[in-house]
Amino acid sequence: MDINVALQMRMIDAVETVKHTNPMAGSVTNSVTMNFVANAQLAIGGSAAMVYLADEAVAIAQAGGASYLNFGTFEPFYAQTFPQMAQALCDAQKPWVIDPVGIGIGGLRTQILAEFKAYKPSIIRGNASEMIALAALWELDAGLAKANVRGVDAQDTVEEARLAAISLARWTGGAVAVSGERDLITDGHYLVRSTGGSHFMSKITGAGCSLGGVMAVYATASTPFVAAVTGAAVYNLAGERAGREASGPASFQERFLDHLYQATAQDIAAQPLDIEELV
Amino acid sequence: MDINVALQMRMIDAVETVKHTNPMAGSVTNSVTMNFVANAQLAIGGSAAMVYLADEAVAIAQAGGASYLNFGTFEPFYAQTFPQMAQALCDAQKPWVIDPVGIGIGGLRTQILAEFKAYKPSIIRGNASEMIALAALWELDAGLAKANVRGVDAQDTVEEARLAAISLARWTGGAVAVSGERDLITDGHYLVRSTGGSHFMSKITGAGCSLGGVMAVYATASTPFVAAVTGAAVYNLAGERAGREASGPASFQERFLDHLYQATAQDIAAQPLDIEELV
Amino acid sequence: MDINVALQMRMIDAVETVKHTNPMAGSVTNSVTMNFVANAQLAIGGSAAMVYLADEAVAIAQAGGASYLNFGTFEPFYAQTFPQMAQALCDAQKPWVIDPVGIGIGGLRTQILAEFKAYKPSIIRGNASEMIALAALWELDAGLAKANVRGVDAQDTVEEARLAAISLARWTGGAVAVSGERDLITDGHYLVRSTGGSHFMSKITGAGCSLGGVMAVYATASTPFVAAVTGAAVYNLAGERAGREASGPASFQERFLDHLYQATAQDIAAQPLDIEELV
Repeated sequence: MDINVALQMRMIDAVETVKHTNPMAGSVTNSVTMNFVANAQLAIGGSAAMVYLADEAVAIAQAGGASYLNFGTFEPFYAQTFPQMAQALCDAQKPWVIDPVGIGIGGLRTQILAEFKAYKPSIIRGNASEMIALAALWELDAGLAKANVRGVDAQDTVEEARLAAISLARWTGGAVAVSGERDLITDGHYLVRSTGGSHFMSKITGAGCSLGGVMAVYATASTPFVAAVTGAAVYNLAGERAGREASGPASFQERFLDHLYQATAQDIAAQPLDIEELV
Repeated sequence: MDINVALQMRMIDAVETVKHTNPMAGSVTNSVTMNFVANAQLAIGGSAAMVYLADEAVAIAQAGGASYLNFGTFEPFYAQTFPQMAQALCDAQKPWVIDPVGIGIGGLRTQILAEFKAYKPSIIRGNASEMIALAALWELDAGLAKANVRGVDAQDTVEEARLAAISLARWTGGAVAVSGERDLITDGHYLVRSTGGSHFMSKITGAGCSLGGVMAVYATASTPFVAAVTGAAVYNLAGERAGREASGPASFQERFLDHLYQATAQDIAAQPLDIEELV
Repeated sequence: MDINVALQMRMIDAVETVKHTNPMAGSVTNSVTMNFVANAQLAIGGSAAMVYLADEAVAIAQAGGASYLNFGTFEPFYAQTFPQMAQALCDAQKPWVIDPVGIGIGGLRTQILAEFKAYKPSIIRGNASEMIALAALWELDAGLAKANVRGVDAQDTVEEARLAAISLARWTGGAVAVSGERDLITDGHYLVRSTGGSHFMSKITGAGCSLGGVMAVYATASTPFVAAVTGAAVYNLAGERAGREASGPASFQERFLDHLYQATAQDIAAQPLDIEELV
């Protein structure tokens, strides 16, 4: 079977399984965008639960089909929450997504991100600068250590993060998704580019964070790689549709969430994808 | 006077008093939905104030006409905040609402929820599974200890929580509101079923949390039972109207808040209610 | 040159510089409205980053062109975060905005607000009651110590805060912005009144908080006084436009953010301003 068709079939299966089973993907995620994350997870058919404390994070890690850890708005007690949740996820062999937002800002965040190399998250999602910075922090490719992180914005292009993404995926054995004008998703063997979206996605806060939460929901129903590709595709589809109807960033966000809800599995799988086999 | 008419007259009075006096109901509430809680409270004519720290919680408990305590996204220092705020509310004999979201997840949350049995909150609002779990935690009805809580979703139906709700109301001497397809509100003497709403209410995060905050605003202007019935009625009314206009969950939430704002006291009191006298 | 024309030219320059350079203004801000703050900052062309921890706050203070400190939803560790961030901003001579929301509620918040007298923030933004309370706390004008703060609402009128605002501006050497039906902005030498807006601005949470964040973005590109006037003007413009299109508070907020995004520099500078030279 053609690789494109095979991927599309698995995407359709992931989307429909989520719509029919409403799987729960719990999160420890930043306070700025946690409402958007939860609403995006609900819109695609999933179920959400957000917590802060270590024992609660372990409980939702065990209860959910997958989990999402976002490094924004770090709190002091995350020194316990993050490692304990990661350990619980590894022990239970559950898929999980990290978003290393704010990498390079602050000692505790950087220390925990460094420790997470050993836990090998199933999906790593971020912008180009974050992926380059994480590969450098994990010393996966010392020559790439030129990340340009400023707040939560990317200063590097997606293609500049290509090698970092491949290195990260080969280290974890999972998937890496780099968000940008043309998204790049790789599992170290294949590399997919997904297009669509809207310029408004960089004019609202949380497009990236909520995508991480959505990938966690799909990861309850498929492999990390298919989940990451499916998340990127539904975001590109809903972003494109919402962009045509919006008169500004707030109407864009409203229509975007409505289109996340309305998108069919067939529409999502038909969103343009470009597959490359890595050597 | 007919009991329906009497209840409707008191609901109209509660709604209009709130619209004319803009009463403040302070909250300690979860980070995921606190923006929605505040906006819902403002939309019906109330005033909002959210805090985290114990001495601030005591201050807003004393300053407000009623208060709202929501057990989501627990923080470590809630070990002080929650009991001190509850004590201040009891001392000042002010009405207050709790939402035991996440009951059963985490040691601190469970411990404080157990301690709250002694404080007897004026209104307890939650979904069916949460009400069954709380009645079990408070050992009010050992035979019901079969709650099915998963994240913030209910797995049980409202009618399955009927006995738990009555037990809780009879223990506290206040009101209990169980949210679901057909809401159930009881003060242990009467039981009201309120209908309306929209299937979109389970596709957005915070419909339940914000309802608790709205009930707290109405509790500044009426009894816990009337406040809880009024809150359920305005949510069912605004949900029904918004559901007819929405094309997805985000447009639903926008129209829902607009309809909360536009709903007249007469419309709210005319929302279908079914009253049963308990024996 | 006419003072009005000179001010308008500087406002146009601030707006266009922000639109072209996307400057970052980091925040430590309350959890209720931080999403709105970030989205408003993005809508006018800026970039946002929110953190909690002291070392992260110092990092974004140094990385950003300006910063925003909002005193809502205080957390225990703000005892470190707020003073360290203020010190870093003073050391780096970067402009920063404070919003003393909740002044008078809680010991830690009041203590830190009192200490902030020495740091002299570049812009102080709040409602009338908050400005009167802050002038009293800083003992700038003992005779005015009659603030009427209730939750996050103002009980005093903007004109009642005129002397407090002037005293605060003369102490800090920066600008003070009092939000209300007719906004008042002063640097101690000039006093501007800006009109427009909508009654819906008091029916949504975060209109004031997000204005503080927007003023911080403009402060990266102009003086504190011009930044504060520009922020007030764009809020009055977008509020007026959104108010004409809204059917309730939620549709108002959506249209408001869209109009923040669409407003041109010329439109913003043309919003009615009344300039008074103080003696």
